[in-house]
Amino acid sequence: MAAANPILIPELRVMLAEGDTPSLREVAEELHPATVAEFTEGLDDVEIWQVLDSVPAELQAEIFPYYPLGRQEELLRMADRAHIGPLLEWMAADNRDDLLRELDPDFVEDILPLVAKAERHDIRMLLSCAEGSAGSLMTTEYASLPANITAGEAITRLRSQAPDSESIYYIYVLDAERKLVGFVSLRDLILAKPTALVSDLMQRDVISVRVDAPSEAAIDRLARFDFLAVPVVDDHNRLVGIVTHDDVLDAIREEATEDAQMSGAVAPLSDGYLETALVAMTWKRGVWLAILFATAVLTAMVLAKWEPAEPQLWLVAFIPLVIASGGNSGNQSATLVITALSSGDCKLSDWKRVFRREVAMGLLLGSLLAVPGYLLAVLYAPTPIKALIIPATILTVVLIGTLVGSLLPLLFRSIGLDPALMSNPFVSAIVDIVGILVYMGLAMTFMG
Amino acid sequence: MAAANPILIPELRVMLAEGDTPSLREVAEELHPATVAEFTEGLDDVEIWQVLDSVPAELQAEIFPYYPLGRQEELLRMADRAHIGPLLEWMAADNRDDLLRELDPDFVEDILPLVAKAERHDIRMLLSCAEGSAGSLMTTEYASLPANITAGEAITRLRSQAPDSESIYYIYVLDAERKLVGFVSLRDLILAKPTALVSDLMQRDVISVRVDAPSEAAIDRLARFDFLAVPVVDDHNRLVGIVTHDDVLDAIREEATEDAQMSGAVAPLSDGYLETALVAMTWKRGVWLAILFATAVLTAMVLAKWEPAEPQLWLVAFIPLVIASGGNSGNQSATLVITALSSGDCKLSDWKRVFRREVAMGLLLGSLLAVPGYLLAVLYAPTPIKALIIPATILTVVLIGTLVGSLLPLLFRSIGLDPALMSNPFVSAIVDIVGILVYMGLAMTFMG
Repeated sequence: MAAANPILIPELRVMLAEGDTPSLREVAEELHPATVAEFTEGLDDVEIWQVLDSVPAELQAEIFPYYPLGRQEELLRMADRAHIGPLLEWMAADNRDDLLRELDPDFVEDILPLVAKAERHDIRMLLSCAEGSAGSLMTTEYASLPANITAGEAITRLRSQAPDSESIYYIYVLDAERKLVGFVSLRDLILAKPTALVSDLMQRDVISVRVDAPSEAAIDRLARFDFLAVPVVDDHNRLVGIVTHDDVLDAIREEATEDAQMSGAVAPLSDGYLETALVAMTWKRGVWLAILFATAVLTAMVLAKWEPAEPQLWLVAFIPLVIASGGNSGNQSATLVITALSSGDCKLSDWKRVFRREVAMGLLLGSLLAVPGYLLAVLYAPTPIKALIIPATILTVVLIGTLVGSLLPLLFRSIGLDPALMSNPFVSAIVDIVGILVYMGLAMTFMG
Repeated sequence: MAAANPILIPELRVMLAEGDTPSLREVAEELHPATVAEFTEGLDDVEIWQVLDSVPAELQAEIFPYYPLGRQEELLRMADRAHIGPLLEWMAADNRDDLLRELDPDFVEDILPLVAKAERHDIRMLLSCAEGSAGSLMTTEYASLPANITAGEAITRLRSQAPDSESIYYIYVLDAERKLVGFVSLRDLILAKPTALVSDLMQRDVISVRVDAPSEAAIDRLARFDFLAVPVVDDHNRLVGIVTHDDVLDAIREEATEDAQMSGAVAPLSDGYLETALVAMTWKRGVWLAILFATAVLTAMVLAKWEPAEPQLWLVAFIPLVIASGGNSGNQSATLVITALSSGDCKLSDWKRVFRREVAMGLLLGSLLAVPGYLLAVLYAPTPIKALIIPATILTVVLIGTLVGSLLPLLFRSIGLDPALMSNPFVSAIVDIVGILVYMGLAMTFMG
């Protein structure tokens, strides 16, 4: 998924204003569907539908899945009901399944009657696969053949199956009960004598995955054996679908981003970094920050046992807590910006938006932690006024953390270095020093 | 790359001892080449060559690239020179390029004369592509056609080109100067009338990458447009190679692992976690730990300005340094174990090996940091003996960090949770508390 590209928006708007359908169609037909989605994403929903309406449903259904899922949902909700059936029928089964899983189940039930019966069966089957299973990654569009025909006949049959198959490069050989008995590549069929039997050409040692196996099983097998697709079977070894290379690639990228976000203590985002609303982001970061804060409170309580002789030494107990707050928020920001840069969700030129977001996040998350910080500080500080040093430091340090964490990876990218070099421990180390300086400065100001 | 699977080793050794070449050949021919490599990886080099010698060079060359690169290098170095030529000639160009890039350039010059002249040209061309460029990912084996022939003629020509092409599913259309003018899929050729001209069937709007573009450009284009391959052209738009889906998939996985390791402050490993020698690992972790330690020293020096009134309060200045040392080594271990688990380099059952490695790493890295820690402590401690608190704590805390960081992700996996939940900040938080307890305990022991 590439980010929206606004470069053609003015021209498209002129064509839309003039009702110049032939030009719109030409744009949509000449470019790759992914590029069409990229160039039109900056239009509003009504305008996008006007562009889509200029082309046949078949091409509509190719362009549509390249919009971000949230946008697809929005477009579907405001679509003319007459459009929904053909669009869903023409969409590749796996893309359609991704979209329908995003939707409210009631809305899905509402629109399913608009879809032809044969497709409806496939939709229900795919939707019934558990999230995270091999089945949830698969498409029901595959090419299959019986074993007892010749290569020549096979190619003729493929010609009639082809329009429905996302991939005809691997053809699965099924027996009368639809059990998977072998597979043959289109390459083998082409290279074989036309009179050779499929049963003699096919590989019998088929590597498949069970529909209820974890999706990692399908991903691993495709990656390990360099396959274009992995067949998915039910518990009677009947073929129910295939997982194709492009879906595996998307799944691997998504998983790498999720893992990176988890390792930076951010609950995985469902949308891109810049697309996630501030409230959702506060929640996804705040939960983990709060858990980490609670752990750091234990550290402070342990340190406070150190029985300080001088009254202002209660401040010592809060050193690890204060610097951990900054380090943790800094790690979150660094992780989010690094993953957004590497997935293309955010570009160097977005730095102002990143800056504004992270200022807002720093203030929000800092306030969130400042409250329990103050409550804890009151227990140890000589006066409630002096206890204010702690929340003031936490707020400042968390803000510094979000800014250092987000802007340093951007700076690294801008001078041609890998932003991932701005590792979590490195962000923490920098925020630690600044945090200590802030803490000492504020302490001296408050304590006089 | 899957880990070695020892299950067939006893049977293979019996076959080898009995000189039962037909059975060895049967094993090697019946299984997928990736599986053959997996099952034989546990044999020693001489035994692997005995197995490989049982099959023709063509199949040898398919199995060989599935061994880890380090093992391939070892096998090549001890190979009979008569084997090297045919093996390299039959290997897919991209796999061969990966291997040759691992080797000492002198050794490459030494073995290149063993390879047929045509292949030698390809090898030199691929080796000349800069590391990290689209060219370094590509293979020179692609199918190409002129524009002015029919679909029927095209298929006939492909039949003769096919044995040399890693992928015949996308066919690139070249003009007389080998400039890329279009592409056609095998699917389109099969579905077209045999008399249709390739120039009418082909897509003219070809998305390609320049050979010197960064490899990310090829990866992004393939992923965004759901291609099986992306053509690579020189600065005159002449086709020089293709980047295929399987190489992109490997590159994405590798990059995700490298990014994760960088974000955990470990220099990216060239081999698997369990395969990396302790010396190499000490270096890859030690460099970053030392840099982070130096930053933490600044924090300590800032804190030491806090002019303690009581003599034992010099210990306060070292609090952030001590806990950061444990947190950083813990993050490194957690990152390494999480990436090893997700890439399949390490399994739950390897926990004893992980434990032993991390004890060794903890002691090595801890000692490494303890020395500068002591030198710094002597400046602030009342006596050189009392300064020993700092190195003793650093050593203990780093060891605890490596153990907590490595064993918690394994524990999470064993109870069915995602090991990536054991995020860096979380490991730091746990090591912080333990570190403070150790520090206080040691301080009380030393100071009485």
